[in-house]
Order: sequence, then C-alpha cells, then structure tokens
Amino acid sequence: MTPDIAPRYAAETPVYPGERVDDLQNKGLKLIQRPGSFCLSTDAVLLADFVRVGKRQRLIDLGAGTGVIALLLCAKEDTLVADACEIQPDIADMARRSVRMNAWEARVRVQEMDMLKAPGIYGAGVFDHVVCNPPYFRADSAIMSEAETKRLARHEGALTLNGVCQTASKLLKSGGRFSVVFPSQRLFELMTCMQNAGLAPKRVRNVLPNAQKPPRVTLIEAVKNGGAQLHWLPPLILYALDGAPSEEYQRIYAPR
Amino acid sequence: MTPDIAPRYAAETPVYPGERVDDLQNKGLKLIQRPGSFCLSTDAVLLADFVRVGKRQRLIDLGAGTGVIALLLCAKEDTLVADACEIQPDIADMARRSVRMNAWEARVRVQEMDMLKAPGIYGAGVFDHVVCNPPYFRADSAIMSEAETKRLARHEGALTLNGVCQTASKLLKSGGRFSVVFPSQRLFELMTCMQNAGLAPKRVRNVLPNAQKPPRVTLIEAVKNGGAQLHWLPPLILYALDGAPSEEYQRIYAPR
Repeated sequence: MTPDIAPRYAAETPVYPGERVDDLQNKGLKLIQRPGSFCLSTDAVLLADFVRVGKRQRLIDLGAGTGVIALLLCAKEDTLVADACEIQPDIADMARRSVRMNAWEARVRVQEMDMLKAPGIYGAGVFDHVVCNPPYFRADSAIMSEAETKRLARHEGALTLNGVCQTASKLLKSGGRFSVVFPSQRLFELMTCMQNAGLAPKRVRNVLPNAQKPPRVTLIEAVKNGGAQLHWLPPLILYALDGAPSEEYQRIYAPR
Repeated sequence: MTPDIAPRYAAETPVYPGERVDDLQNKGLKLIQRPGSFCLSTDAVLLADFVRVGKRQRLIDLGAGTGVIALLLCAKEDTLVADACEIQPDIADMARRSVRMNAWEARVRVQEMDMLKAPGIYGAGVFDHVVCNPPYFRADSAIMSEAETKRLARHEGALTLNGVCQTASKLLKSGGRFSVVFPSQRLFELMTCMQNAGLAPKRVRNVLPNAQKPPRVTLIEAVKNGGAQLHWLPPLILYALDGAPSEEYQRIYAPR
C-alpha cells in the first residue's frame, strides 16, 4: 500500500508525525498507520477475509491494533456494528482517528482497554462474533520490531491464551463465533484452550506461502457450544511456485 | 495394481479362491488381497510413506489388515522388525500368508488378536513405533462394502479412539512414536485422545485430493512424553488440478 494523504479529511482528522494514511483499496477505506512500528499485518487482512458476518450482527475485535479488521468487516457487511478494544493508548487513538476519517463513528466504537475486562464492560453473551489476531502470540513475532516487542512484553504476564479464549466465550451468545489467526505450530494448544472455554473448533483453514511449504498460520473459527467435527477449507495458498501472488491472495489483499 | 500370481510361490503359500496376489512395485513385495472385500487402502500406503523408522527399531501395527504397512516399512528399513495384530481370523491368516510369500517370517509376526490386549501380550514400553490405520474409524468408511461394515460393526462397542491411544501409549517406550492416518474432520478429537494418553501430537500432514480441495485425511505422528508444538509438513497433494497424479503421489504409490 502506498501513502495517500487525502486532503478532504486532513482538516478534520489529525494525522500525527510518523503516521501515514493508506488506502485499503476496498470501498475507499482509509487507514492510519505508523510505518516502522505499527502497521497492519497480512494476518489481519487474511482474518478479515476468513470471518463470515451475517446481517445485523454485533462483533468485537479483541486487541484491535489499527482497527483494520473492524473496518474491513464493516465494508464487507453493511449492517455490521463493531466494537474494537485496544490496550495501548496511542494505538487506540490512532484506530479511533481512522474510524473518524471513514466517517464510521456510528458503526465502529474503539475502546482503550485490557481485553480481559471486556465482559465486565460490554456484558456477557452479547456478541455474535469475536475476532482476535492475538498481539502477544503473533505469528510474525520473530520479526516484530524491537520497540514493539518491548512494549508488548510488559503485558505478557497478564494475558494468556486461556484468558483470551475465556474472555471470548463470555462475550459470545450461544452459537456465536470466535475467529482467530494463529501460528499453525500452536494450533492444537489454541484448540484445547478454545474447547476448555466452551468454544468448539469448527472451520479451519491453513495458510501456506506456497503449495510446497508447510502452513505458517491457521485461520480458525470456533462456535460457542458447538459440535465436535472440524470443517476444513481448502488451504489458502499465497504464492505460486514461481513467486507470483495467487489469484486468491490478489482477491484478498489487492497488493500493488 | 494388477493380478500377478507368482508361480514360484504358489506351491508353498496357498492363495484361496477370491484372493489375488498383487505386486506392490516395491522391491518385489507381494501382497495377498481379497478384491471386493478386503484390499489395501490408499490411506495405508500414505501412512507407510509418512512413518519414519530408524535403525534396529521395533514396530507394531494395530489393526494390521492385510499387513501391507508392516511389509512396506520393512522394505523401507532393512533393520526393522514388526509385529502386526489383526482381530479378524481370516484377514490375519491372509496377512500371515503374505509375510510367508515374501519370506519375511523372521521380520514380521502376525498375531490374531484384539489390539486392546496387545500391552498384556507384548509388554509395556517395548516398542519404538506404533502405527494404526484405525479400522473402525476409517476415513473411507462411507464407501466400505456392506459386508465389511457388518463385520466391523460387531466390534465397534469395544474399540474407542481413547482405547486405541491408551493402548499405543502403553506399548511405546518414552520418546516412541505413534503414527496414524485419520479423517481430517476428526483431527482435534484424535489429538485430544492422544494428549490424554500422554502422546503429544507432533508431525502433521494434511492429504488433499488437489490444491483447491480441503484435506480428506491427515497423517499425524505423536511422541510419547513429547513437547507441545506441532511440526507441520507441506500438504500431500494427490492430484494436479487437471486430474493427473502428482509427482509425490507417483513416488509413493507407483500406480500403473
């Protein structure tokens, strides 16, 4: 994505030094990011593509970062209303300004908060969907910037995979869905935490760099009080063997 | 595979009416099968390819059927010694005749027995590897013949997935491996049973009809007292999109 400062918004929505405004190539959506320290990941875009939202549903993104998932899902489904919680004040503020820049304050509400406190604030059993690209367990953690690692490390003790799953389960209605993108090598651990929280792993999709590589991350949707069997999707293969982006990758990510 | 009655064996190893002798296209290996009721499945061949056997190891196949997995693994590793247990008397006898036909009585011992009784007979902690293509939970159960279904159904009550995993765990040394081919939609259930039996799911490989289809079965290896993370392999893709067998499928299965 290339920088694209939109003058029509500049007057009303501040963009701070070090930030830039990107065009998401999706219904004119804009996103404020901070190159070098906080940009959306491919994982977030893949997760937004994976999530299925129905009519008039209510969704919450736990650890929303830039807010990109909520924005992409609102673009996908006109009747969706989303909450986004993010613990880091500067990132939450950045997400809030992105929402304002898209004039979606009525559809996406950003809260600066610890995700574990969400059930106490929003209430139990109120959401149709919870999504999470877990910040502390991110697939690309090995390549996070040092600054980011340090900032996140401060919270690691408080947030466990079990805690995230328990929180998601409390927030969901029975039959509600919890969608996550997660490192494939920890898939069984995630599924076990889901199951322990009353969330039955259901739709599963492995994401492969190409058809001859192992999956790097897995997209997974669990259903609160759901049944036992998995529903596997075909793998999401990002690149052909010659390195060209696959058709599906182009459809999802619209790289330029 | 085409029938290939080898006259040099005919005098010493009986082949009964309704049976045929197939050439496995692997170091001259022969296998007795009964077309229409008991033939080796693709799954068994894929599992034999997936299993890694070290030098001078001892292996057991639980529910060995025709004995094909033990035979293929003995062909793969010259120092392997294998036990094969099979509950159905006629099938166990057929497997025993296949072993004799290959002159491998010293390497593969076939026992007619309920796999759950194996630890009491062979002893606990004596095997490096346990393999299982679970007969009662077979991926292709929907297309089993009616006769086979009836025969197997009699035993279903006694044999559970937990029972198979507990049995495998008892038979294995610490650090030993349990390899299974299983329907992908029940992968989480299998992993949970493994974990409950002290077998940590480790190597995982999804088997896909082609790159645009979901996995049908998954190959999985668990390690007794092993660590938590999964080690995913690239998917095993059986056919190209034009329907031609993939290179890897040809390597594994040598179809003619």
